[in-house]
Amino acid sequence: MPLPALAAKAAELGYDGLELACWGDHFEVDKALSNDSYCRSRLDILAKHKLKCYAISNHLVGQCVCDLIDERHKTILPPRVWGDGKPEPVRQRAAHEMKDTAAAAAKLGVKIVNGFTGSSVWHKLYFFPPTAASEIESGYRDFAARWNPIFDAFDKVGVLFALEVHPTEIAYDIHTARHAIEAVGGRPTFGFNFDPSHLIWQGVCPVKFIDAFAGRIYHVHIKDAKRQMDGTNSILSSHLAFGDPRRGWDFRSPGRGEIDFEEIIRALNHAQYHGPLSVEWEDSGMDRIHGAKEAAAFVRRLDFDPSNVAFDAAFSE
Amino acid sequence: MPLPALAAKAAELGYDGLELACWGDHFEVDKALSNDSYCRSRLDILAKHKLKCYAISNHLVGQCVCDLIDERHKTILPPRVWGDGKPEPVRQRAAHEMKDTAAAAAKLGVKIVNGFTGSSVWHKLYFFPPTAASEIESGYRDFAARWNPIFDAFDKVGVLFALEVHPTEIAYDIHTARHAIEAVGGRPTFGFNFDPSHLIWQGVCPVKFIDAFAGRIYHVHIKDAKRQMDGTNSILSSHLAFGDPRRGWDFRSPGRGEIDFEEIIRALNHAQYHGPLSVEWEDSGMDRIHGAKEAAAFVRRLDFDPSNVAFDAAFSE
Amino acid sequence: MPLPALAAKAAELGYDGLELACWGDHFEVDKALSNDSYCRSRLDILAKHKLKCYAISNHLVGQCVCDLIDERHKTILPPRVWGDGKPEPVRQRAAHEMKDTAAAAAKLGVKIVNGFTGSSVWHKLYFFPPTAASEIESGYRDFAARWNPIFDAFDKVGVLFALEVHPTEIAYDIHTARHAIEAVGGRPTFGFNFDPSHLIWQGVCPVKFIDAFAGRIYHVHIKDAKRQMDGTNSILSSHLAFGDPRRGWDFRSPGRGEIDFEEIIRALNHAQYHGPLSVEWEDSGMDRIHGAKEAAAFVRRLDFDPSNVAFDAAFSE
Amino acid sequence: MPLPALAAKAAELGYDGLELACWGDHFEVDKALSNDSYCRSRLDILAKHKLKCYAISNHLVGQCVCDLIDERHKTILPPRVWGDGKPEPVRQRAAHEMKDTAAAAAKLGVKIVNGFTGSSVWHKLYFFPPTAASEIESGYRDFAARWNPIFDAFDKVGVLFALEVHPTEIAYDIHTARHAIEAVGGRPTFGFNFDPSHLIWQGVCPVKFIDAFAGRIYHVHIKDAKRQMDGTNSILSSHLAFGDPRRGWDFRSPGRGEIDFEEIIRALNHAQYHGPLSVEWEDSGMDRIHGAKEAAAFVRRLDFDPSNVAFDAAFSE
Amino acid sequence: MPLPALAAKAAELGYDGLELACWGDHFEVDKALSNDSYCRSRLDILAKHKLKCYAISNHLVGQCVCDLIDERHKTILPPRVWGDGKPEPVRQRAAHEMKDTAAAAAKLGVKIVNGFTGSSVWHKLYFFPPTAASEIESGYRDFAARWNPIFDAFDKVGVLFALEVHPTEIAYDIHTARHAIEAVGGRPTFGFNFDPSHLIWQGVCPVKFIDAFAGRIYHVHIKDAKRQMDGTNSILSSHLAFGDPRRGWDFRSPGRGEIDFEEIIRALNHAQYHGPLSVEWEDSGMDRIHGAKEAAAFVRRLDFDPSNVAFDAAFSE
Amino acid sequence: MPLPALAAKAAELGYDGLELACWGDHFEVDKALSNDSYCRSRLDILAKHKLKCYAISNHLVGQCVCDLIDERHKTILPPRVWGDGKPEPVRQRAAHEMKDTAAAAAKLGVKIVNGFTGSSVWHKLYFFPPTAASEIESGYRDFAARWNPIFDAFDKVGVLFALEVHPTEIAYDIHTARHAIEAVGGRPTFGFNFDPSHLIWQGVCPVKFIDAFAGRIYHVHIKDAKRQMDGTNSILSSHLAFGDPRRGWDFRSPGRGEIDFEEIIRALNHAQYHGPLSVEWEDSGMDRIHGAKEAAAFVRRLDFDPSNVAFDAAFSE
Repeated sequence: MPLPALAAKAAELGYDGLELACWGDHFEVDKALSNDSYCRSRLDILAKHKLKCYAISNHLVGQCVCDLIDERHKTILPPRVWGDGKPEPVRQRAAHEMKDTAAAAAKLGVKIVNGFTGSSVWHKLYFFPPTAASEIESGYRDFAARWNPIFDAFDKVGVLFALEVHPTEIAYDIHTARHAIEAVGGRPTFGFNFDPSHLIWQGVCPVKFIDAFAGRIYHVHIKDAKRQMDGTNSILSSHLAFGDPRRGWDFRSPGRGEIDFEEIIRALNHAQYHGPLSVEWEDSGMDRIHGAKEAAAFVRRLDFDPSNVAFDAAFSE
Repeated sequence: MPLPALAAKAAELGYDGLELACWGDHFEVDKALSNDSYCRSRLDILAKHKLKCYAISNHLVGQCVCDLIDERHKTILPPRVWGDGKPEPVRQRAAHEMKDTAAAAAKLGVKIVNGFTGSSVWHKLYFFPPTAASEIESGYRDFAARWNPIFDAFDKVGVLFALEVHPTEIAYDIHTARHAIEAVGGRPTFGFNFDPSHLIWQGVCPVKFIDAFAGRIYHVHIKDAKRQMDGTNSILSSHLAFGDPRRGWDFRSPGRGEIDFEEIIRALNHAQYHGPLSVEWEDSGMDRIHGAKEAAAFVRRLDFDPSNVAFDAAFSE
Repeated sequence: MPLPALAAKAAELGYDGLELACWGDHFEVDKALSNDSYCRSRLDILAKHKLKCYAISNHLVGQCVCDLIDERHKTILPPRVWGDGKPEPVRQRAAHEMKDTAAAAAKLGVKIVNGFTGSSVWHKLYFFPPTAASEIESGYRDFAARWNPIFDAFDKVGVLFALEVHPTEIAYDIHTARHAIEAVGGRPTFGFNFDPSHLIWQGVCPVKFIDAFAGRIYHVHIKDAKRQMDGTNSILSSHLAFGDPRRGWDFRSPGRGEIDFEEIIRALNHAQYHGPLSVEWEDSGMDRIHGAKEAAAFVRRLDFDPSNVAFDAAFSE
Repeated sequence: MPLPALAAKAAELGYDGLELACWGDHFEVDKALSNDSYCRSRLDILAKHKLKCYAISNHLVGQCVCDLIDERHKTILPPRVWGDGKPEPVRQRAAHEMKDTAAAAAKLGVKIVNGFTGSSVWHKLYFFPPTAASEIESGYRDFAARWNPIFDAFDKVGVLFALEVHPTEIAYDIHTARHAIEAVGGRPTFGFNFDPSHLIWQGVCPVKFIDAFAGRIYHVHIKDAKRQMDGTNSILSSHLAFGDPRRGWDFRSPGRGEIDFEEIIRALNHAQYHGPLSVEWEDSGMDRIHGAKEAAAFVRRLDFDPSNVAFDAAFSE
Repeated sequence: MPLPALAAKAAELGYDGLELACWGDHFEVDKALSNDSYCRSRLDILAKHKLKCYAISNHLVGQCVCDLIDERHKTILPPRVWGDGKPEPVRQRAAHEMKDTAAAAAKLGVKIVNGFTGSSVWHKLYFFPPTAASEIESGYRDFAARWNPIFDAFDKVGVLFALEVHPTEIAYDIHTARHAIEAVGGRPTFGFNFDPSHLIWQGVCPVKFIDAFAGRIYHVHIKDAKRQMDGTNSILSSHLAFGDPRRGWDFRSPGRGEIDFEEIIRALNHAQYHGPLSVEWEDSGMDRIHGAKEAAAFVRRLDFDPSNVAFDAAFSE
Repeated sequence: MPLPALAAKAAELGYDGLELACWGDHFEVDKALSNDSYCRSRLDILAKHKLKCYAISNHLVGQCVCDLIDERHKTILPPRVWGDGKPEPVRQRAAHEMKDTAAAAAKLGVKIVNGFTGSSVWHKLYFFPPTAASEIESGYRDFAARWNPIFDAFDKVGVLFALEVHPTEIAYDIHTARHAIEAVGGRPTFGFNFDPSHLIWQGVCPVKFIDAFAGRIYHVHIKDAKRQMDGTNSILSSHLAFGDPRRGWDFRSPGRGEIDFEEIIRALNHAQYHGPLSVEWEDSGMDRIHGAKEAAAFVRRLDFDPSNVAFDAAFSE
């Protein structure tokens, strides 16, 4: 859905803002940097529907900064970043694009870039064949080596990077998040896009995450998930696609999963988070428009100390 | 601990048998094939302590048949299999060694080889970057292509292969076990070494596993595990080593974890399993000898319809 | 409440259709067969309020086909079926009436008859005095012998029979439902009216039921129930009447019990059920009209992939 | 197993006493009354192995006093009570035999007869077809009418009747036990043989039962049970025989089920129960002798304020 | 907020009535008794907004009748009752004021006074240093000695006293409530203002409380609470103020805590309670007006058999 | 039981050591200081039975250092400390006695004194009448003012004070323990006697306590407890004496309560605790000798990395 149509729809469904994705054609980093009127044009589209933009997202390019590159990554990169697909150059071009993303965000007047980092050690998740602590440590050093220069670029334009803590990233739970912060010396450029849907099925309490990183939560995704364990399936989900009812867990429209958003809102209030609550909608068992609408209403009902309700347009096509 | 000492110890601790590992020097496949008295000498050592051998294990070589080979694999292979470490030749040499393992088992008079298979798709566990079902499918085709010739060699000598269902293998839960069976056309050569410690933390009910594959359980490991989730840690265990109390779960001496062995014994009896219950002992928080002894007693107390109690010497050094 | 009043009320409360009962005067089988304008007149009443009819119900007569007849059955049968109350003739007249019910449904243009079957072995529920498997088996044979001729009559007019799986019937849970299907050779005439309220207190997971019989769910009742166990009462409910708070469980207005309808809707969608969701309202602790209205709203809110919402008028007087 | 062999075995397995059953040839009521040396001979057999007899059991005849008699009852009655099997005379002969049982107990020097009562309303367990409270009430009046004369005979010889609260009996949970006591005007002749295995799967807390009827617990059975619900089976057990793993629950050797005997012993101590703890052993998944031995040890370990441990020989053949 | 403003607000937020507090200036006992038009003026204010008054509250003075008086009590008493703060005279003046409160209620036309009693033994809650049963008993005798004369004054004007069962009072759970009733000989003057928020965190089931004291529940507060235990905090709440997220539990806006109001309403209906459901709103994590509004809506949605919804203005300033 | 008899009994029951109490005549502080052979004589008695003494206890005097003194304290103090019972002098004499206790411990060659501190704010546990944070704070300041001089005396002789974290003390859970440490500036003199029985019923996880104060656990009590909540009773225990089955919780013989000692031992090992595990036996429902014996065996079975097992003789008379 092109941005004008999406903006109209989002406003109609009850949203106050949009989180623009840097893939597809909602917000194109290269155009933002090369074309001086581009950012203005984007904001005009939003303004026409009284929508704000609190953050932009560049998960897909960010993923390629640290990942061991394989064919899957081709599908998530623009050709100019993928190039010939040789791993190290891909990673470097991705890193460069992330620097540009910070600059583009600044031009748009946005202070937060949400995204992924990738990880060179994710595939060593289970410690067999035997895995030394030093091997893991080198993964965190690799993260610091690749992202510190990017974060320097962010600092230069006064923009923050909010990692969506998520499997396949350098941080996917509380301990790894702490590890990642330490790896970059605790610099404030690096914080989190809190999304409870990636934590709940791991058994991580979303409120504990907020308590642990109160000052470093720069953005919030409202997305739900539910474990559907019955003794015959696995929390690791059996190499089955999202939407397959045999999986151990799946995403859900907000309020239809097992996340206790009530406690999350209280914890965010207590942590003095004042940013938007951005709905990232994903539910294989429900019509998208129906879901986006009920999600907006759900967040409004939930949010007793009014925050603004945004829609994450990243996955909206 | 060399085999004579281990055998003496196992008998003293109360075991009836040993499951010999094909790494270290307990049971060496190449010697078994090249030296006609080797197998006899091994059996004599056991017989001296009234121990039986119900199965041999070759997990480490098996792991390398399908895995994407990296530096970790060097530490688990004998030099003759590792060679120069180029991935495809390593995989092929590993496959050849597994054929030899079947022959060696037959020479020893043993009908079961326990082991791992490795997997070319384990690292795609989480479906991001987006992963197509066809990519997973090709992992199972790779498994069939590499293992069917091995299984032919097993068939020739009348030996069965028992995959220990385990993360990083082609089968790690009920759905993937079913998938793996289908991939090799359901041939009876391929069955399972049931080990509940790898299932429980995934949320898979061990009894459901037994019910699902009643006729195909060729060997049983008695090993315990416990989730130690408290909201601040993750079932994925945060890239932390076994024994770290911050992990989401860890192995435990039998009876000190969360596995309900009572129900497992009943299910095995109902499935008409008549093989040994082999203790694979691992518990970072307890003295090994103390643990092995209490484990033998635990299994005897548990096993109301007497089976034989064996000790898995694979990890005993 | 006569049908015209009921139809007006149902429409006002938010329903799209009515499930007509063959007892009382909502839909009388004998009139439908003997009077050519009767069906038309019923449909006109519904059409006046924009209501559809997706199914008719004949639970009470169906109950008497297999039951051991006693005085209780007199209260649920029309005099012409009860006759002099001699058990075997009552059962045969009930069987005949069920054949007529199929013909009447066909005349009305309805493809589904919901109902009960009764059971000659229900009273042997607990296996004391010792009960042989063969005694149970003969109960299922009796069911087949009595219902197969009825199902032949259904087949002749292209109508399906949907047994409401329920205590006192030949099928009251998953295993007995499977047994009943086998008893009639799996003929498609015989399927189920899925009603989770009869399953939940037995500990049967409604979603598991749907998964087990996906293609054979011909109709769905939305009815809730709740266990109210506190250690002093029994799931068998102590010979206490519905509505007594000391019972182990009781029916509840939809959404006010313990049934997870969210998961049920997802399972029904996955099973490709496209029929109506028919509210069978029963709650001893709530005003009927209040309840029927909130139930209609509850189902609408629930049903994200819109199905039609019907009202089961069977118990509406 | 004839009594001399059983007594030897029980003593060897660690028991202090036997609870003699009035079916088979362990303790025959007619011989006890007609042959003056019979009781002496029984006691001599026990004394030879230092066993006591705290109670006798006559469940099977008791069952027939109130039951609707059918073919199943033939298998549990001696021919002289069954006669021609006409229901009412069977019930009356059973009632007469229960009076004789009291007299025989007195001759043996035993103060407690354990048993069943049967019930004329058990088959109306589920209130469909609709069941009036008056129908249930008449079942309790029937119980009183048939058992009060028997209780008069008990009173005459100073023996108490201990109903084993159990499905198919006039009392199967706390509310029905209270109802039964009221039906006979609270006469002390009528009390209970407390057996938690029949309560636990109904969801009745055994401790609550003890608290409710503290003074009226005349005997205790140590028998365990376990629910094996997994969402696919029913607490009503699907017309499946004991021992079938698909059942919703089953009996277990003491300590291998879900009953918390620790709390039961504390509650019995608090209720000032001083009688024996009699093991009624039943476990389809375990060898009987193995089980009886571990049960004796289990009860000894449990019973911190030493009571005597008896073995219920009723089902021992 | 002065009463006229509060009344306007309460009506706007959806309430039918107000529960007037005898502290602050909403309802002043001394003015009610000395000024004949005072009560009329209060009722006029309410009537202007169509509000009723079902009960008045005098918790703070009541607290001082039995308490060991210390500096905290000065803050909750009017100067004329506090006087020079000598404990015994304070207690006696408080007792006198409670008699006046009954008279004032009668003048206002209200039949219920809600309140606290205080307790001379609350500080002996934990039985260390060792506490004799007689010491506790003397606390209950003290309660009876001080309150019976007050209850005589209530009886004289036909008003009932409803103790809000609450920590620091003579009754704070079911057993102490029963003890308190016994202490005053079961006189009907003394009943309860049922407020589940004080019970739930103690582990007391609110429905059990209603069942235990069905006829003695004279008033109902709708107030919610939630345990927020995570293993690091205590149900005793660590000497931390309400609103501190580290506490073991806290109050919540109705419907946002863990109380199952559905079951409470059913129990109140069953107990034939016909009084108001009065919202006592307290939630440190939510805006007061927002909360009071959603609470009114919550109670309306809940209350299927319409009761009147009142607002407890006691804590409204 | 005098010390010689107790020592003989403890050795017979399987203990390695005794924890001597400073009340009764097991270890008298004044005699230890005034009589040079006293300590020797105590050690000789222990040595005769091969018992060690790892710690002495002076809970009762310690309690009176901070408490609001009332008549209950008279029963727990020697007359020379109680004197005329005027509160402030009692507190000062108690403080002096605690200094002497340190000196006596040093003379005995023991490095740890276990004990209580009392608290001037315990009675303000529930924050009504409204309690200011400053009132609580002054309680902690009072603790520091009274105990710092005592701790100075401890430092002088190189002895540590281990507060048994417990209701009625300045620290009763994790937050208050942290508060107390802060109040005395974190001085190492002040640590804890870890006793899980006082934590479990509060909902505090014993392992979390160990993790929080790893280096400051100077002694360990093995004592069990169990919540016996059923909806009708309160965790606050209704002013009922220990042993009353209606209480919300009670103490239990180790292994018969709800404490997971397995996890505690692992946590203590991880925290590098090397001191004794001292059984403080209390169980109103069990014979003391029986219990002390099974407790010794329980601790031995539990303690896989052998620690010494001591018996807390404090409450042994």
